[in-house]
Amino acid sequence: MKVGARNRIIGKVTKIQEGGVMGLVKLEIPAKSQMGSVLTLESLHEMGLKEGDEVEVVVKAVNVLLIKP
Amino acid sequence: MKVGARNRIIGKVTKIQEGGVMGLVKLEIPAKSQMGSVLTLESLHEMGLKEGDEVEVVVKAVNVLLIKP
Amino acid sequence: MKVGARNRIIGKVTKIQEGGVMGLVKLEIPAKSQMGSVLTLESLHEMGLKEGDEVEVVVKAVNVLLIKP
Amino acid sequence: MKVGARNRIIGKVTKIQEGGVMGLVKLEIPAKSQMGSVLTLESLHEMGLKEGDEVEVVVKAVNVLLIKP
Amino acid sequence: MKVGARNRIIGKVTKIQEGGVMGLVKLEIPAKSQMGSVLTLESLHEMGLKEGDEVEVVVKAVNVLLIKP
Amino acid sequence: MKVGARNRIIGKVTKIQEGGVMGLVKLEIPAKSQMGSVLTLESLHEMGLKEGDEVEVVVKAVNVLLIKP
Repeated sequence: MKVGARNRIIGKVTKIQEGGVMGLVKLEIPAKSQMGSVLTLESLHEMGLKEGDEVEVVVKAVNVLLIKP
Repeated sequence: MKVGARNRIIGKVTKIQEGGVMGLVKLEIPAKSQMGSVLTLESLHEMGLKEGDEVEVVVKAVNVLLIKP
Repeated sequence: MKVGARNRIIGKVTKIQEGGVMGLVKLEIPAKSQMGSVLTLESLHEMGLKEGDEVEVVVKAVNVLLIKP
Repeated sequence: MKVGARNRIIGKVTKIQEGGVMGLVKLEIPAKSQMGSVLTLESLHEMGLKEGDEVEVVVKAVNVLLIKP
Repeated sequence: MKVGARNRIIGKVTKIQEGGVMGLVKLEIPAKSQMGSVLTLESLHEMGLKEGDEVEVVVKAVNVLLIKP
Repeated sequence: MKVGARNRIIGKVTKIQEGGVMGLVKLEIPAKSQMGSVLTLESLHEMGLKEGDEVEVVVKAVNVLLIKP
C-alpha cells in the first residue's frame, strides 16, 4: 500500500474520548511525543480502535503549519 | 504564546525546495522521523527559513488521518 | 514569532460553546465581520480562552475557498 | 445559495500569481486586511478570476487556528 | 456561481446526526456511493438541511488523499 | 487495512500534471464523475502513479463543504 502524503509516523493509541458525533484519539509517537486525531465516531467504531493499538498517523504536507519562535 | 492545536512538535529544517508559487520544507523531528510542510513561497520568504533552523511543526487534530494496518 | 500562513487577522473572542470533544469559538474581526473556529476542548482549555480575549486568527491559504457570485 | 461554513467574507482580488499547477490569489477584505487563497490553475482559469473581481472568501471553522499571544 | 474547487459532486442528504457543536451529514452520490460531511450545528441549522435535500458536495483538491493498494 | 475517513471512493487516474513542487492527479470515479487531488511531486513519484492506475480517493468528512443551491 502506498499513501500519497509526506507525513507518516507510527503511533500507539493511548486514550480515546467520545463526544456526540466526533471522537478524539490520543497517540504516542517515538521520542515520547504526543499527537491527537479527531475523527467521526462512525470512523472510530468502524476501525475498532482501542488503547494500545498501533496505527499509522498520516498528515498531508499542506496541512502542516510552521512557526518560527 | 498558546497555540490551539493538539499536535506541536519541534523540528529542524533539513531541506527547502521552491516551486512556482509553493515551497516544500523538509524537517527532521525527534527519533529521526521526517516530516514535510507545503506553504506559499511568500510565507517561506517572509519567515526567512533556512536549513538548520528550528521550528515548531503544528497540525490541527482534525487534519490527522489514522490508518490501521 | 513568525507564522507560515498567508491569513492572519486579529480577532476578539465573543462567545465560546462547548460540545463533547470539540468547541466552537466565535470571533469578531475588524469591520464587524464574524469568524468561527472549531478546536478540541483540550486545546480550548489549555489556551484558557475566554470572552473578550484577543487572539490571532490563522488560516493557511490552501484552506481558503473562493466563490464568484 | 447557502454555504455550510462559518467563515464567509467578501473580498476583492488584488493580485494573481500563477505557478506550475497552483495559483495564489491575493485579496483585500474590509478594514484593509489582506488574505490569500491557493487553488489549482485549473480552478483559477475556470472561474475566470481577474484583479478587481469581488469574491466570497470561504473557510470552514475546523481550518481556523487560534493563537493567543 | 463559480466555485474554486476541483471536486464538486451532486449528492442527496440521507441522514443527519447532531452532536454538541458539530453535526454529521450523510450523503448519497451517483453510483450508490456514500459520502459524509462534518460541519458546525450552526451552519447545519442556518442551511436548514433535511433528509432528501439535494446539495453540492465540494472538496478542494489539496484535501484529497490518494492511496494505491 | 482500515482508514479513519468517511469518504473513500475507488477512482482511476486519467491524467497527471507536474508543477515545480506540487502535482495534480485527475481521476474518474463511478458515474463518469471527475475528481482531482493535489499532492507533492515527491509523494507522486514515490507512489509511482501513472494513467490508468486504480486508487482509493480518501477525504476526511471535516474537509467536505456543502452548498445548497
